[in-house]
Amino acid sequence: MSSLQKTGLVVTAHPGDFVWRTGGAVALHVKRGYRVKILCLSYGERGESQFAWKKAGVKMEDVKAQRRDEAERAATILGAEIEFMDAGDYPLRTTEAMLDRAVDIFHELTPSFVLTHSLQDPYNVDHPEATRFAQEARIIAQAAGHKPDPNRPYSAPPVFLFEPHQPEQCNYKPTLILNIDEVWEVKRRAFEVLAAQQHLWEYYTRVALNRGMQGGRNSGRAMTYGEAYQRLFPEAVEVLA
Amino acid sequence: MSSLQKTGLVVTAHPGDFVWRTGGAVALHVKRGYRVKILCLSYGERGESQFAWKKAGVKMEDVKAQRRDEAERAATILGAEIEFMDAGDYPLRTTEAMLDRAVDIFHELTPSFVLTHSLQDPYNVDHPEATRFAQEARIIAQAAGHKPDPNRPYSAPPVFLFEPHQPEQCNYKPTLILNIDEVWEVKRRAFEVLAAQQHLWEYYTRVALNRGMQGGRNSGRAMTYGEAYQRLFPEAVEVLA
Amino acid sequence: MSSLQKTGLVVTAHPGDFVWRTGGAVALHVKRGYRVKILCLSYGERGESQFAWKKAGVKMEDVKAQRRDEAERAATILGAEIEFMDAGDYPLRTTEAMLDRAVDIFHELTPSFVLTHSLQDPYNVDHPEATRFAQEARIIAQAAGHKPDPNRPYSAPPVFLFEPHQPEQCNYKPTLILNIDEVWEVKRRAFEVLAAQQHLWEYYTRVALNRGMQGGRNSGRAMTYGEAYQRLFPEAVEVLA
Amino acid sequence: MSSLQKTGLVVTAHPGDFVWRTGGAVALHVKRGYRVKILCLSYGERGESQFAWKKAGVKMEDVKAQRRDEAERAATILGAEIEFMDAGDYPLRTTEAMLDRAVDIFHELTPSFVLTHSLQDPYNVDHPEATRFAQEARIIAQAAGHKPDPNRPYSAPPVFLFEPHQPEQCNYKPTLILNIDEVWEVKRRAFEVLAAQQHLWEYYTRVALNRGMQGGRNSGRAMTYGEAYQRLFPEAVEVLA
Amino acid sequence: MSSLQKTGLVVTAHPGDFVWRTGGAVALHVKRGYRVKILCLSYGERGESQFAWKKAGVKMEDVKAQRRDEAERAATILGAEIEFMDAGDYPLRTTEAMLDRAVDIFHELTPSFVLTHSLQDPYNVDHPEATRFAQEARIIAQAAGHKPDPNRPYSAPPVFLFEPHQPEQCNYKPTLILNIDEVWEVKRRAFEVLAAQQHLWEYYTRVALNRGMQGGRNSGRAMTYGEAYQRLFPEAVEVLA
Amino acid sequence: MSSLQKTGLVVTAHPGDFVWRTGGAVALHVKRGYRVKILCLSYGERGESQFAWKKAGVKMEDVKAQRRDEAERAATILGAEIEFMDAGDYPLRTTEAMLDRAVDIFHELTPSFVLTHSLQDPYNVDHPEATRFAQEARIIAQAAGHKPDPNRPYSAPPVFLFEPHQPEQCNYKPTLILNIDEVWEVKRRAFEVLAAQQHLWEYYTRVALNRGMQGGRNSGRAMTYGEAYQRLFPEAVEVLA
Repeated sequence: MSSLQKTGLVVTAHPGDFVWRTGGAVALHVKRGYRVKILCLSYGERGESQFAWKKAGVKMEDVKAQRRDEAERAATILGAEIEFMDAGDYPLRTTEAMLDRAVDIFHELTPSFVLTHSLQDPYNVDHPEATRFAQEARIIAQAAGHKPDPNRPYSAPPVFLFEPHQPEQCNYKPTLILNIDEVWEVKRRAFEVLAAQQHLWEYYTRVALNRGMQGGRNSGRAMTYGEAYQRLFPEAVEVLA
Repeated sequence: MSSLQKTGLVVTAHPGDFVWRTGGAVALHVKRGYRVKILCLSYGERGESQFAWKKAGVKMEDVKAQRRDEAERAATILGAEIEFMDAGDYPLRTTEAMLDRAVDIFHELTPSFVLTHSLQDPYNVDHPEATRFAQEARIIAQAAGHKPDPNRPYSAPPVFLFEPHQPEQCNYKPTLILNIDEVWEVKRRAFEVLAAQQHLWEYYTRVALNRGMQGGRNSGRAMTYGEAYQRLFPEAVEVLA
Repeated sequence: MSSLQKTGLVVTAHPGDFVWRTGGAVALHVKRGYRVKILCLSYGERGESQFAWKKAGVKMEDVKAQRRDEAERAATILGAEIEFMDAGDYPLRTTEAMLDRAVDIFHELTPSFVLTHSLQDPYNVDHPEATRFAQEARIIAQAAGHKPDPNRPYSAPPVFLFEPHQPEQCNYKPTLILNIDEVWEVKRRAFEVLAAQQHLWEYYTRVALNRGMQGGRNSGRAMTYGEAYQRLFPEAVEVLA
Repeated sequence: MSSLQKTGLVVTAHPGDFVWRTGGAVALHVKRGYRVKILCLSYGERGESQFAWKKAGVKMEDVKAQRRDEAERAATILGAEIEFMDAGDYPLRTTEAMLDRAVDIFHELTPSFVLTHSLQDPYNVDHPEATRFAQEARIIAQAAGHKPDPNRPYSAPPVFLFEPHQPEQCNYKPTLILNIDEVWEVKRRAFEVLAAQQHLWEYYTRVALNRGMQGGRNSGRAMTYGEAYQRLFPEAVEVLA
Repeated sequence: MSSLQKTGLVVTAHPGDFVWRTGGAVALHVKRGYRVKILCLSYGERGESQFAWKKAGVKMEDVKAQRRDEAERAATILGAEIEFMDAGDYPLRTTEAMLDRAVDIFHELTPSFVLTHSLQDPYNVDHPEATRFAQEARIIAQAAGHKPDPNRPYSAPPVFLFEPHQPEQCNYKPTLILNIDEVWEVKRRAFEVLAAQQHLWEYYTRVALNRGMQGGRNSGRAMTYGEAYQRLFPEAVEVLA
Repeated sequence: MSSLQKTGLVVTAHPGDFVWRTGGAVALHVKRGYRVKILCLSYGERGESQFAWKKAGVKMEDVKAQRRDEAERAATILGAEIEFMDAGDYPLRTTEAMLDRAVDIFHELTPSFVLTHSLQDPYNVDHPEATRFAQEARIIAQAAGHKPDPNRPYSAPPVFLFEPHQPEQCNYKPTLILNIDEVWEVKRRAFEVLAAQQHLWEYYTRVALNRGMQGGRNSGRAMTYGEAYQRLFPEAVEVLA
């Protein structure tokens, strides 16, 4: 890997999140030559695996293994690396060791962008916890006194929030619509790894089509499939439009 | 002028506004080859001309002429065209004829961006009125049934709000910081046309320096002078960062 | 019509709005025995009729007539009465006479609910103007001194805002999801009257399916097709749930 | 009247408003030696006079005269001057001539404060219209070119919003609680002029008692009767507390 | 107890809260046949017991016992069960064991509604902590992998926030007003258990009367005593009004 | 020290914060005869000491000592006492023991005001953590059952939030501008202790000048240097202006 390769980092609470909410951005930037890494804080073993738990006598470690396998296959389809933290879900509880590892990841990648959850989500407390964790790591990574290394090139990257399940209830407001037309088929294939959640395949296909039409309306340029993002910090620009 | 030349439109309530708040964007895009037009709704004759009215017996038409002259000189320094509507100030009152003309301007320019005031300003009711007017014209220009012409290429441009005098009181939140380093001297020369408001030269120089430092902090790239903008509509993008 | 029949009132800026945004509520309450009246402030002749204006030499009166015909057919399918105000669109401009007529309608119907647009819509200034107009009429209708009649039974009804095209950009937040499963086919047939906007048939079908799934998630009761509403005033209740 | 006498200005939509919402502030500042003037935009003849309209054959001019008389008696009890604009109510419609007169009043009084309605009120469109009107007049009064007079001492006064009927629905947030203990009996006597609204006497007595207890909680100093205000502009201070 | 009996759950930080803020809802639903359970996270022993601590040498365990006794008597009057967590107050600190127990309670009750504090309260950090805790438990209870039991009928119930002491400062906005006329005397008797806080008896009686009048205004149906609630999630409905 | 001496308390995350953001208020109140104490939660050793960490082999204890020395010298210039908690920075982690000590400080000082950070700061998670900590201590100090002492005179003081680095991004809205003209030179001398951050000397001088001009605009009284504050709780007043 060349040191000039651009990178992106995704921080999600559960495996489904990176597929439904940001799979297009992952695949698109991979296609553009970025190294993209997914930091998946839990396996979604308790809250996102309703189907697995219907089988009598199923064990936690089996559910985790099954979910991990799915997540890895989905990441592979999208072209991304994936690292797990096994922080638990429902509730997700992060530790100082996890935070330390996350800061190291920021230093290793020096990402051009970070993708994570919305700031609020009254339906799922793990989601804003993942966002809080990602933001804390991003900021600590800036501290010269954290594992001091004067040659470290780190600059805190822009943060983009991907779309929650019920955006208005999360006070989520898109500021960008990413055109994912050229990777839609890849994203859709990643959906299909999540075999137990087939009803969501269609739900998130509809979301992508409607965001795509909105992208077209806002820009006057045709877009079929879109992903919404909310940018957290002001952008420094050289030209307006 | 080539039909391929990009254009920008600025809609301001008073002459001072386009100098202090958006003079850098005007000069920068002119330098980049854009045709930029300023639609200046009033001469700021009553509310922005405290100095002129201190002279006994001064007449409204004289104040207007003097302000118009200043505005034209400032626009020339920035490299922009300027058109006035003489809508009055304190209060600014727009008419259907002005609206019709503004729609025509949108059609003529097919601008790549529109720059206007913040959505709220409890210190100056003319400012949000100018914003409302600009937004209404921008939307009407989209209507196929307004002066129908099936060959009209118009697509509603993005809107960027420039910075008001007391941003927090206007619920203004920057989403972009434009680097105006390469045109700072031009903007500063335009300040100097507004000879009666010398105290504001320094005020807005400080604003530019502080926005510049913020631009640097947000991007990790050095910026000395900045102008803040708030984007109103989601942006359709092909890559995140 | 029995004086005991319940009634509902819809106030929309343009014909498309009552079909896409609230056609399910209209059909559902008609099915439940309500008299529902649509007050359609304009024909959407300039802004919602892109297709009609592509024909050379087309006249405003023809476009209006064509749109009126469509709106009447859609209302008939939904089972509602419709009244037009011909207030123009892009921009919609209401008059005191229209306001007076709207107050009379409130008095005649004594509706159990009013359905209208979101409070804000940066994409379409006609929409919040219709909302403002509906709210003003609703309030004036309360005034004992407006066409005094001590026997008038009027009580200001609850207001529900139907969903705009890009809800987050309008700061729209659903507080109710209406289950429209039993009238979905009726709503869909009303879509098909709007032959020139076939791309929106699928868009609003997807909206209905996704709101339906959200309705199911929020209640634990299956729902396939939903319409979102935002209630404006507190509800007085005898039991919580 | 000495030129050193401090003054206050109240701008209300209807007579009831200045009694219920700000009668304590009026009486208190009068007691402190201020000249207080109430600018009452309408007589509340249509919307605030339910009782009067129950009498068969009652005429608009009679209702207005009766309401004017009540308002004058209430103002007298509070110790304030009152001026009416007869702008109508439900809906209240202001004219340029009224605005001009309001600007003159700002110039004549050079008030130390302006009291008016909340910024929003979904129950009563006349209220925010009065606020808008008061704010516009306050700002125009600053314009050197409005009836130019270089010796005019005017400086735009702070604006305080008094409490609406249902504060949370109006997005109203108190920032000050004024202790009105020493004038409570005066305010209560002014209530009693409004004989037809006896149910509101008790309602607003309860509001005063509850705001008083909140005032005590926020300050640690006993307060029995309070009036809530929301300050609109930042205060310049020489000490914090 | 029949398995068809509906249930309600109240989660409060301190004993006073369930009496002042939601005693009417508790008594009303009990009267309607619901089983209502109060989960009282602390005894309010440090912050709500100013009176008890005035006695020299009083011990923490005595204050707790005295408060527990009061809380139990108040719950009995209202007709509810009560369970304590002894999480401490000022500050209230919850543990994983408490969370686990709370999840079990959600499973046992499968409540039709949950009543808890406002989302924010700058006067009392225990209140939003109780809300956060209630929400987390409600969500974890949904996870199939938490104490897996495929036959568990749980569906996450609607959440209603009861009214804080100073609603506007808590950004609290009522969306429902519950008519508690038929149980007012019961609620008032529960007040009287809290003998040391007699000044609050009157305060909250005034709150109930004013909310009652607001309930009447919003519905056109008479209401004397009301309790305000803010609903957190969209409601799925079959009819609008 | 007389028991009648008024006091003020400042709670900051890092040393730089009390210098840049609130040094004027500290010096001004000291000049007015107040005892002012700064509770500095960390030494800013990791995140605010970029310069120190550029030296190879530098040790954490040395950086802390150096920062502590700077902070003490700056406090001395301003005339304030300072106490450190050594809670760490990037991230700042408070303990129950620190909270207990902070409550004692509230009891010892019975301050007339508390100054702390903004409620939000997406650039620095230590800042809102300091605010949260200060608020929790302020509230616990009110509890009669916390280290019971019936003779304790404590009443919870008003809280003022000082200005963050990028106010709009922190949803910070000034409600007060403190005139610091008479202590500006003192504040500026405190800046100069922070030798490694010379670029911020000019940044915060510009902030002070621009806030000063805003203070003048809002009051009509000249002000050269200002500091912005946001008051959190309603103020109980005896007169409006």
